[in-house]
Amino acid sequence: MELWTESQMASIHMMLNPRSIAIVGATPRMQYGGRFLAAALKARDRVRVYAVNPRYDEIMGVMSYPSVRDLPEAPDVVGIVVPHDQVLDVLQESHHKGAGSAIVISAGFAERGVDDRRDLQGELGAFARASGLRISGPNCLGVANVKRDIWATSSSRGASGQSGPIGLVCQSGATAFGPFLVRAVEKGIGFSYIISTGNEADLDFADFARYLLDDPDTRVIAGFVEGFKQAEKFLEVAKLAAERGKPIVLIKIGRSELGAMAARSHTAALTGMDARYDAIFAQYGVIRVHDYDDLLEVSQLLAHCTKPCVPGIAVVSHSGGISSLTADMCGQAGLDLPPLGEEARDGINGILKGFGWAANPADVTGFANSDSFPQIMEHMINDPQMGTLVVASAGEEAQARQVISARDHTDKGVVFLWTGSRDAKAGLAQLKSAQIPVFYTPDKLARGLQSRLAYHTWRERRLRDGFATAPSRTPSQDEAIAQALGLGRRTLSESESKQLLTAWGVPSPREHRATSAEAAVEAARQLGLPVALKIDSPDIPHKTEAGAIRLNLDEAARVRAAYAEVMAGAKAYAPQARITGVSVQEMVGQGVEVIIGVSYDPQLGPVLLFGSGGVMVEVYNDVALRRCPITRSEAQAMIAEVKGARLLQGFRGGPKADVEALADSLVCVSHLAMHLEGRLAELDINPLMVLPAGRGVKALDALIVFRGT
Amino acid sequence: MELWTESQMASIHMMLNPRSIAIVGATPRMQYGGRFLAAALKARDRVRVYAVNPRYDEIMGVMSYPSVRDLPEAPDVVGIVVPHDQVLDVLQESHHKGAGSAIVISAGFAERGVDDRRDLQGELGAFARASGLRISGPNCLGVANVKRDIWATSSSRGASGQSGPIGLVCQSGATAFGPFLVRAVEKGIGFSYIISTGNEADLDFADFARYLLDDPDTRVIAGFVEGFKQAEKFLEVAKLAAERGKPIVLIKIGRSELGAMAARSHTAALTGMDARYDAIFAQYGVIRVHDYDDLLEVSQLLAHCTKPCVPGIAVVSHSGGISSLTADMCGQAGLDLPPLGEEARDGINGILKGFGWAANPADVTGFANSDSFPQIMEHMINDPQMGTLVVASAGEEAQARQVISARDHTDKGVVFLWTGSRDAKAGLAQLKSAQIPVFYTPDKLARGLQSRLAYHTWRERRLRDGFATAPSRTPSQDEAIAQALGLGRRTLSESESKQLLTAWGVPSPREHRATSAEAAVEAARQLGLPVALKIDSPDIPHKTEAGAIRLNLDEAARVRAAYAEVMAGAKAYAPQARITGVSVQEMVGQGVEVIIGVSYDPQLGPVLLFGSGGVMVEVYNDVALRRCPITRSEAQAMIAEVKGARLLQGFRGGPKADVEALADSLVCVSHLAMHLEGRLAELDINPLMVLPAGRGVKALDALIVFRGT
Repeated sequence: MELWTESQMASIHMMLNPRSIAIVGATPRMQYGGRFLAAALKARDRVRVYAVNPRYDEIMGVMSYPSVRDLPEAPDVVGIVVPHDQVLDVLQESHHKGAGSAIVISAGFAERGVDDRRDLQGELGAFARASGLRISGPNCLGVANVKRDIWATSSSRGASGQSGPIGLVCQSGATAFGPFLVRAVEKGIGFSYIISTGNEADLDFADFARYLLDDPDTRVIAGFVEGFKQAEKFLEVAKLAAERGKPIVLIKIGRSELGAMAARSHTAALTGMDARYDAIFAQYGVIRVHDYDDLLEVSQLLAHCTKPCVPGIAVVSHSGGISSLTADMCGQAGLDLPPLGEEARDGINGILKGFGWAANPADVTGFANSDSFPQIMEHMINDPQMGTLVVASAGEEAQARQVISARDHTDKGVVFLWTGSRDAKAGLAQLKSAQIPVFYTPDKLARGLQSRLAYHTWRERRLRDGFATAPSRTPSQDEAIAQALGLGRRTLSESESKQLLTAWGVPSPREHRATSAEAAVEAARQLGLPVALKIDSPDIPHKTEAGAIRLNLDEAARVRAAYAEVMAGAKAYAPQARITGVSVQEMVGQGVEVIIGVSYDPQLGPVLLFGSGGVMVEVYNDVALRRCPITRSEAQAMIAEVKGARLLQGFRGGPKADVEALADSLVCVSHLAMHLEGRLAELDINPLMVLPAGRGVKALDALIVFRGT
Repeated sequence: MELWTESQMASIHMMLNPRSIAIVGATPRMQYGGRFLAAALKARDRVRVYAVNPRYDEIMGVMSYPSVRDLPEAPDVVGIVVPHDQVLDVLQESHHKGAGSAIVISAGFAERGVDDRRDLQGELGAFARASGLRISGPNCLGVANVKRDIWATSSSRGASGQSGPIGLVCQSGATAFGPFLVRAVEKGIGFSYIISTGNEADLDFADFARYLLDDPDTRVIAGFVEGFKQAEKFLEVAKLAAERGKPIVLIKIGRSELGAMAARSHTAALTGMDARYDAIFAQYGVIRVHDYDDLLEVSQLLAHCTKPCVPGIAVVSHSGGISSLTADMCGQAGLDLPPLGEEARDGINGILKGFGWAANPADVTGFANSDSFPQIMEHMINDPQMGTLVVASAGEEAQARQVISARDHTDKGVVFLWTGSRDAKAGLAQLKSAQIPVFYTPDKLARGLQSRLAYHTWRERRLRDGFATAPSRTPSQDEAIAQALGLGRRTLSESESKQLLTAWGVPSPREHRATSAEAAVEAARQLGLPVALKIDSPDIPHKTEAGAIRLNLDEAARVRAAYAEVMAGAKAYAPQARITGVSVQEMVGQGVEVIIGVSYDPQLGPVLLFGSGGVMVEVYNDVALRRCPITRSEAQAMIAEVKGARLLQGFRGGPKADVEALADSLVCVSHLAMHLEGRLAELDINPLMVLPAGRGVKALDALIVFRGT
């Protein structure tokens, strides 16, 4: 299925670049309808604006039509500001008229939390998709084409902003046209478009982001989202954004952990809701920030400073305290401030003549406001170790001009840490209007620079490695899935789970199922002693607690006794459980225990988990998460991310474990999750034993749970 | 020894409240000397100001004297702006004249990093202490009595600020009178004093903080420090500050880990330099922040909102997006937004009549700017679950007046999250001038509120529990120390280390030292088999690596063989090692292994470490740190802080361990560290075996290293 159609993009284009706007529910009062009309009228010299309201003949100097039907043309966009129960009628009428798109300001839909309003919203969405009259909203505040100064919004904060390379898409309209816009104006940061998507009955964040990827004036996509309607669409946008080098910077509100469903598997319990977003944003190169100042400052940095040629940061300041604090914050953020090269040091020393410090950070005292400051900056920029220059100061216009000129004569990034008052107009205003990225405190500067470095490092690797795709299923995998689903149960037993895993190349210890003590002894003889005995039942996922597992049985008599014990244990623990027998398994040698799992997130889809084994994973929640599928290098990154995985490297004299086979297993499990096409609810391999290098891995226990259909 | 004398405080008082100021090195040019004179002259109607410079008869309209000697009176403070090699002469002359204090602006001392300048600085300090003419500086920018508008500073940023309850003490003068002051002016935040301490040859951060504790106009002490000269003094200030309820808010620059000395013990390696500060600040109630905006906003919050009666935070806003984001950030910071009580909910619903959401956070849409907004706030404030009201908005003066009035009529805290432009003057300016604490982004608001709650929670507990003090040493402890130091070695062997620990009540397994195989067998018989054999040598701290340890020896023949092996292993590993014999030890039963240690920090003194045992402590660096000595409740808090200590609670069916005995051991070790009075460099008990409840603990291995004298 195509995620986006041409006609959908054309509809968005009309919404954002309208030649004509009709406002249904326009009024002379400056409430939602009146504000929309007033905002649209700002562009009346370029856009035909129509009021629609049967109660008026004329509003704000334009003729008011009784209905959309009566308009002299089919408008590119219809703004809808009528009671919730009239919205669908207006949409139908607009479609009939041939309108290109609609913005539904009206509220009273799913946000009310009641079924009939949720259903009504569903009807709007269905109508939009069926008719091709695509909708933003309901419960949104509209959109703005800032670069062409066309405002189709009911915002109460006015309709003006600065044009620039950042495309802003927010689910919350009051936030987009409120704090985000006013802070951007304060900071001299400009937008290409401002888009509020509201309840997203039809078009959502991903759709508008997809449009902005094709917009040549948008270099960075900034957003504020509470959730994603369809993960696949968002991930596809992130992929395309990576290819085109347009970063996505997001505020994503964390969801409460309280709502998490009671989980049967280890994996589901370990996979924190918000941690999934962190992991998947990192996997797809989406930059997550926590407040609107960060959102704007980081977006501006990414829009105006390209990829650094080397990671080194040079800092110049006229205060020892500020340069120490800046260096400290950069260090904490993991950035590198390399020592100044000899040439730069000698050059700067020649200027300072004993005053200040030719180092990195450089404390050049009053020289930061002198005629020789351009030479000092030049020495630092020309140092081959330095990829970015940070000027930490609060100088007058002369200094600002010098910094702007330095930026204009280099390919390297030049960034300002403004240490003065934000009210100070002189130098700061000039820096802003020249689009020098400005930060206001050392910690935000450092985190911003770190985001930029991390993004470009991620992107370079990603363009090289590509995004993961699952291969087609083999016939034997088709068969294994058919067989597992054919059991008609939501939960598979250990041996059924392992059988499925085997078809994806994740090995288990050799085993035989036995339904009598004698058969168990015979199985043990075939496998070779010692063996393990475990109950095999889809209803007993936690065998240890049930006392239904015996390890290291090294004599036939012990196998026989264990059979009876395991059966008795299981029956005592769960009298109603379906018992398919006892699994007799070879004992696997010494290795490092880890956990691999998958849990299905209703917003994000199948999420893969890798963790250290044993008690550590529970005590430290030491896990790495990724969206399925993953590449082999992502598997390696997951292993590197888990602290307890240091044990795999031969900790304290132990042998090095088979990390290659472990990485293969992670990739295979991620493919299995994709191949199950949404049927997988939870998967647990706990533990997976990683044997010494060259000897592979073994799934010692496994549990697979399907989603209800 | 007294940490502070009355005459020292009197000298500081004169420096900060001078009736007369002389500036040695005053010039007409607006460089350091000229700026100091100009700043002082702002107060010439209240303060007698003298220029001292033999090259001028008059500067800026005041008479210039050839030397301090020639002044018509002994000035309360002498500002010194002369070359570094003349400073001591000026100080001597000033002392002779009877001056009360001195501010040494001159640079060129220890900051140069060369020995002779460091020595010269030492001479200034020694002279100040001997003469009683106390000094701020050198390499500082002076001080300001903001409340009386007296500026004794060479700052280039002018000499004006707003008066208020925050006392600011910074080692970096350019930072104090630069970003900190200008941002405070921007935010409408006022200071009682601004003090820059420079290189701290004499008076340091703690001395000025001590003075401010007695100043009735100072309610919060804010500071920026790179390091402490004397930990005891700083900790004593922190204690007094807690008693008086004057919070200390600090930016402390982290020190590079690179400089950390090569450590012999586990403990020293695990105790991150910067983590020690975090731990000790938390222990002593010092609030650490990371940038100057935070420093000011958090200080303002603490100065103007007292202890919350209940932790609950109520948030009211007119935007769903902002209220969600604010709630999310508060949740992340660990704050509680309780649901609105029935009374408040009904009351607000009665006003909203279906528009907006009477909940917490409340989204009251346009009602946030209506005449009924005071009633909405009142309902929220009166809810008994709420201790603090946050208004998230950007309203005009009318709204600001309503919020100020609400604050004036309640004992609960009222805080503003300003979501508009910082340039917007109307409402914001009024909030600032009414000293309503204002934050500008949800995450900073949340972290600020969390700091305030944590501070008051800490203080309440601390006032109840008191600060730890070590009891006097017992005669047997005196003897044990004399014996250990009498060995004349820096490193004690395992058995010597355990002997010392025993005198402080930390038990070890029973053991006998043996110097022959036969003696080892005899010792094993006395102790009862099985036993452990370990080499006993002060030169082999890592016995496992040396192959000089054997466990679980259950027969005489094995003991005999092990003796030979252990001896041979030790000799092969370290041929030059002094070997005092082999220690034969009883085997201790099953328990949970933990680590206790102490390392001496040159700035902070003895730091106690508690960590999970085994590989976990290395992999996860899962440790808790405190300055010695500690109270028993601090010991319990340390145990609770370490994630791996969950194993002590009987993890996965194990028995509950003797946490009481463990807490006792932590307290005892902290006393031992104090009793060694600075002689202890490192102490390691690794592992300490915590046996099941009621059965105590055993130090299985121990290492004590003394500091060189």
